[in-house]
Amino acid sequence: KRPREYGIRFGVMPTGQLNAITDVPGVRVGQVTLNHGENVRTGVTAILPHVGNQFQQKSPAAIYIGNGFGKLAGYSQVEELGTLETPIVLTNTLNVPTAADAIIDYTLSQSGNEQIRSVNPVVGETNDGFLNDIRGRHVTKQNVIDAIQQAKTGPVEEGNVGAGTGTICFGFKGGIGTSSRKLPASLGGYTVGVLVQTNFGGTLQIAGVPVGVALGRYEFKDNLDGSCMMVVLTDAPLDARNLKRLAKRAFLGLGHTGGIASNGSGDYVIAVSTAYQIPHASKNAFDEVKLLRNDNVSPLFMAAIEATEEAIINSLFAAKTLTGHQGHRIERLPVEKVVEILKNAGQAR
Amino acid sequence: KRPREYGIRFGVMPTGQLNAITDVPGVRVGQVTLNHGENVRTGVTAILPHVGNQFQQKSPAAIYIGNGFGKLAGYSQVEELGTLETPIVLTNTLNVPTAADAIIDYTLSQSGNEQIRSVNPVVGETNDGFLNDIRGRHVTKQNVIDAIQQAKTGPVEEGNVGAGTGTICFGFKGGIGTSSRKLPASLGGYTVGVLVQTNFGGTLQIAGVPVGVALGRYEFKDNLDGSCMMVVLTDAPLDARNLKRLAKRAFLGLGHTGGIASNGSGDYVIAVSTAYQIPHASKNAFDEVKLLRNDNVSPLFMAAIEATEEAIINSLFAAKTLTGHQGHRIERLPVEKVVEILKNAGQAR
Amino acid sequence: KRPREYGIRFGVMPTGQLNAITDVPGVRVGQVTLNHGENVRTGVTAILPHVGNQFQQKSPAAIYIGNGFGKLAGYSQVEELGTLETPIVLTNTLNVPTAADAIIDYTLSQSGNEQIRSVNPVVGETNDGFLNDIRGRHVTKQNVIDAIQQAKTGPVEEGNVGAGTGTICFGFKGGIGTSSRKLPASLGGYTVGVLVQTNFGGTLQIAGVPVGVALGRYEFKDNLDGSCMMVVLTDAPLDARNLKRLAKRAFLGLGHTGGIASNGSGDYVIAVSTAYQIPHASKNAFDEVKLLRNDNVSPLFMAAIEATEEAIINSLFAAKTLTGHQGHRIERLPVEKVVEILKNAGQAR
Amino acid sequence: KRPREYGIRFGVMPTGQLNAITDVPGVRVGQVTLNHGENVRTGVTAILPHVGNQFQQKSPAAIYIGNGFGKLAGYSQVEELGTLETPIVLTNTLNVPTAADAIIDYTLSQSGNEQIRSVNPVVGETNDGFLNDIRGRHVTKQNVIDAIQQAKTGPVEEGNVGAGTGTICFGFKGGIGTSSRKLPASLGGYTVGVLVQTNFGGTLQIAGVPVGVALGRYEFKDNLDGSCMMVVLTDAPLDARNLKRLAKRAFLGLGHTGGIASNGSGDYVIAVSTAYQIPHASKNAFDEVKLLRNDNVSPLFMAAIEATEEAIINSLFAAKTLTGHQGHRIERLPVEKVVEILKNAGQAR
Repeated sequence: KRPREYGIRFGVMPTGQLNAITDVPGVRVGQVTLNHGENVRTGVTAILPHVGNQFQQKSPAAIYIGNGFGKLAGYSQVEELGTLETPIVLTNTLNVPTAADAIIDYTLSQSGNEQIRSVNPVVGETNDGFLNDIRGRHVTKQNVIDAIQQAKTGPVEEGNVGAGTGTICFGFKGGIGTSSRKLPASLGGYTVGVLVQTNFGGTLQIAGVPVGVALGRYEFKDNLDGSCMMVVLTDAPLDARNLKRLAKRAFLGLGHTGGIASNGSGDYVIAVSTAYQIPHASKNAFDEVKLLRNDNVSPLFMAAIEATEEAIINSLFAAKTLTGHQGHRIERLPVEKVVEILKNAGQAR
Repeated sequence: KRPREYGIRFGVMPTGQLNAITDVPGVRVGQVTLNHGENVRTGVTAILPHVGNQFQQKSPAAIYIGNGFGKLAGYSQVEELGTLETPIVLTNTLNVPTAADAIIDYTLSQSGNEQIRSVNPVVGETNDGFLNDIRGRHVTKQNVIDAIQQAKTGPVEEGNVGAGTGTICFGFKGGIGTSSRKLPASLGGYTVGVLVQTNFGGTLQIAGVPVGVALGRYEFKDNLDGSCMMVVLTDAPLDARNLKRLAKRAFLGLGHTGGIASNGSGDYVIAVSTAYQIPHASKNAFDEVKLLRNDNVSPLFMAAIEATEEAIINSLFAAKTLTGHQGHRIERLPVEKVVEILKNAGQAR
Repeated sequence: KRPREYGIRFGVMPTGQLNAITDVPGVRVGQVTLNHGENVRTGVTAILPHVGNQFQQKSPAAIYIGNGFGKLAGYSQVEELGTLETPIVLTNTLNVPTAADAIIDYTLSQSGNEQIRSVNPVVGETNDGFLNDIRGRHVTKQNVIDAIQQAKTGPVEEGNVGAGTGTICFGFKGGIGTSSRKLPASLGGYTVGVLVQTNFGGTLQIAGVPVGVALGRYEFKDNLDGSCMMVVLTDAPLDARNLKRLAKRAFLGLGHTGGIASNGSGDYVIAVSTAYQIPHASKNAFDEVKLLRNDNVSPLFMAAIEATEEAIINSLFAAKTLTGHQGHRIERLPVEKVVEILKNAGQAR
Repeated sequence: KRPREYGIRFGVMPTGQLNAITDVPGVRVGQVTLNHGENVRTGVTAILPHVGNQFQQKSPAAIYIGNGFGKLAGYSQVEELGTLETPIVLTNTLNVPTAADAIIDYTLSQSGNEQIRSVNPVVGETNDGFLNDIRGRHVTKQNVIDAIQQAKTGPVEEGNVGAGTGTICFGFKGGIGTSSRKLPASLGGYTVGVLVQTNFGGTLQIAGVPVGVALGRYEFKDNLDGSCMMVVLTDAPLDARNLKRLAKRAFLGLGHTGGIASNGSGDYVIAVSTAYQIPHASKNAFDEVKLLRNDNVSPLFMAAIEATEEAIINSLFAAKTLTGHQGHRIERLPVEKVVEILKNAGQAR
């Protein structure tokens, strides 16, 4: 059960129908989970902004670096040009090159891309090296391509899945989580969807309740380092500048859960708009765009904060206890106990 | 009474003795409050990192821009050189030039600065134009110099004082707030002190409890825009790079209170270390510095988050209902009711 | 005579009609020169992007910081929102607050701005403290307002004028310079205009010829520190992202002249498009903009490089020998000798 | 023959002994050239700052992005932590993942790194897809490891070698180039070494002489797009902040050659100091560092500008005419004719 089913609420805005990143129309997610033998606990999660050829129809995009101790691929071109030209792929730290290479394969081989000689793969990662034999680099290019090709709309699996298979969050088993917000029509009616790969530490708060302290697991009593990848999609018509601002608010959502963006964190937010595309080539010298005015972006900011917070907590509720590499074992969040704590604080039914 | 006296706790780290920015040894604060007639509700708050000549003995410093809809003076030189060469002054938006000019006066006239022909004043601001006749620009250079010269160690007045005289926060009267954290010796024993000028909106949370919703005042039911200036001092030996990272965590602390860094926000964090100074002129070609390693900065990050959150809430608890410009009136936070809400959530005694 | 009249060429693109920033339609420049008594050698230069109310009709804009040892006002809001809401004013370092205050006066008092409570003045500066009694801060608010109000289209005076009255460049008298480029219709037909306030050092090159070495004045034989303010206007439809890229190319133009952006430099480029405006308030939730595609911006980049280089050299050719503060005297560039050197190198007639 | 042997001079500072990046003590360069069959014209160039285990003894470093249309790997961690933990590898655009993966292999397998689970490979690239079958991704991991392992001090081969095998510059054959500057003892006696991979366009200037125009090859008569990777090493004791400033000056050096950093450019500068290392792990909570003061960095800035300019021209003088992929052929710079042009301008003997 997801937190909402226990009556837990994050913020004040309503969710989209699935409470998932796929509430943003056209967005697809594909995941490949590698849970083999005693040592392999990793995987791939791919997010596709639209159904077309992403290289030929680039999406306005921005990447915000919360804390840059990470290996994300693709930053500078997105920053310079304001567009995303590949699927977004998440995986483990040491398989970033594998994933980047696979995205190049995928893009070069797409119909219409026969003459393309340059591709900017965007790959995020967190380090699952405690539960996973990360040095073995078990993700293959085919795994990555499978994740991309299996991507679909509809509900998104959470927890120990895809790139979240082996991650750890606040000392408990982390994973993939997702959430969304749907603005009321008076605020534009836009949807903001978030997907996270949670692998970080701090002092866990759920809906504001200091659960980490209650459970006796918190910084710096314990040493809870790590990273978080956040992907924010929206159908609001934003350009790269306002997408970067939106991305920054997801970082505030991470803060809401008690994350501290510790020295060792690789905390990145990739924000993409599906409202329009920028064609790779065009006879028109101009891009004619209709952009939401600065004055109207604040509700989207709040939506990104709320959905990121909820996506992170969703990942914790969905994750299961896992044993992996070198016999390391990480317990799931004790959900029943947590719900009890939240009930006592008036934050769950 | 401050929130702690009601048993409210923010995070897990102990405060310094005064729970104020002045817990960082040598740091002084001076405030001038302008509360005149029917229209003038503004003032000045000055923060001085050390007792020496700040221009001759520059402090390592950084400025993080959370949201840049603001008029802060002095950004680029601090960013380029990594040092602060004047007191930090906070005031209202339209008096930034006045304050900058006064800092130049102050610096040029200091003994030892007779030949100085360049000064980089650092001035932060928020917009108190609802309660204050801001277009009248009532702050004078003398007010600013007075604030600097009256700066002292010891307890810091909070609420409707200095640059917080006319500010509004989450729809209630905001103001100046301060807090600190003292790391245990095992984590270095450093102090992190924060002072804030609160003038922003969002959906108020206190110690995680959704007070804004309980009181019926929240985004975007109400329209609660605005800004927050945050000043972080520490005696930990950090250079500009790590001070910028520290500053960024204060922004997470703002997030903890429910701030969303809305489009119209000018959210800036100025972070300064008192652990060493960089001389303006030196016969030595080198600066020999002993810097805390990256690996050891995370506890400072958490301290900055906690202290910023608490400083903001402290400002709200201290502020009083105020009537000002054009008869505008802003109520104080209903502290008794808030404490009741927190008690019910198990977050106050 | 300007360098072109000696047959000197900078790059390959044609200039606009006046070879001035005012070749960009609608752009106006106003200058007030303070050359009083023995010590006052300073002034004000104002650049206005369009004839309307700049606050109500904001211009897309960006600021690039080449080297940030300077006191430019207004950076963060331009960066955050992508717009300029006041005239651009250049003056001396210690009068930045005066100029900012005057811009606030000017803006608050404009018809239509009666309710405005927030203004982001953009003020650039260089330090004329060798020839000018800069500590005396002789620029008044009225001087600034006069510069704004006298702004006009047409030819722009160069040399010891306005904010360039007391500046020094490559060890010679610097000042205000301007230049422009007009793209051929096949490249869009746009105009790029540049105005500079030259006060920096390095090893002077003119049209590539190492004039500084030939004249025996160069780094680090001599110590030629200082700053350069560059203002780039264009009628090409660029948003803030591409304007920032354009601004960065002006910095390359500074490099062409032998500038090194030394430690003590405050090298800033303010780039503004006149192709469209962003209204301060609008009933429309959207800005509908027609933007030049990324693919088409490179000719503008080259135009900015060429025009910046030429504007800097124009400032040197126009400046006159000046004696000022404390009897300091700076010789003009020995133009006749320089032309001779260029002739020998095949770079002048 | 290198340009200096024709009496061509770039700036005023003396070179190091080899006029190469390897003049910085301890710096090694390794290159693998792939010139196979009709279609493979690519390779690898590796730069190693010191002889130790780079992961265990990290180098202070910074990366400046001149124009970010590129796929450089490793940016954000260098920016966040200020250190380089792997060799720097240059290759072609689509083999960045291969190179990154190889660096991971190399690092994981080094003695002392058995427990390492995180590596931040730094890989730069330019696009050699006109002369090279870039879509074939012909660089192998072994090629990369060979380049690293063959790295040596001493002279560096220039031209069609390593990562410069298939590159194009100003419409002529580009490649690898290198140069250095040695400051006089009075300015600290430091060495600045630069290595470039030239693949960009603009309007070629050599020692200031407009050679591109004289040869009839220039923007935008021709369409000369592309990228430049620049690597700057120095033995001056700089931290990441000042290394970033140094890196930025290399970009000015690119400007000196007539480069315009066009839209399609990936222009990056990686700057590293060899003066000290930051240990990966340490019992000491502090890094004790002796850093060159801001006041003393300007001569290094000028050295970086001069050496970058010369390194680029060196690459052009060394490169040979090459035929490759799809029969594409790029002529070498007509050196004899160029020298004639320079002689006429008084810039060569």
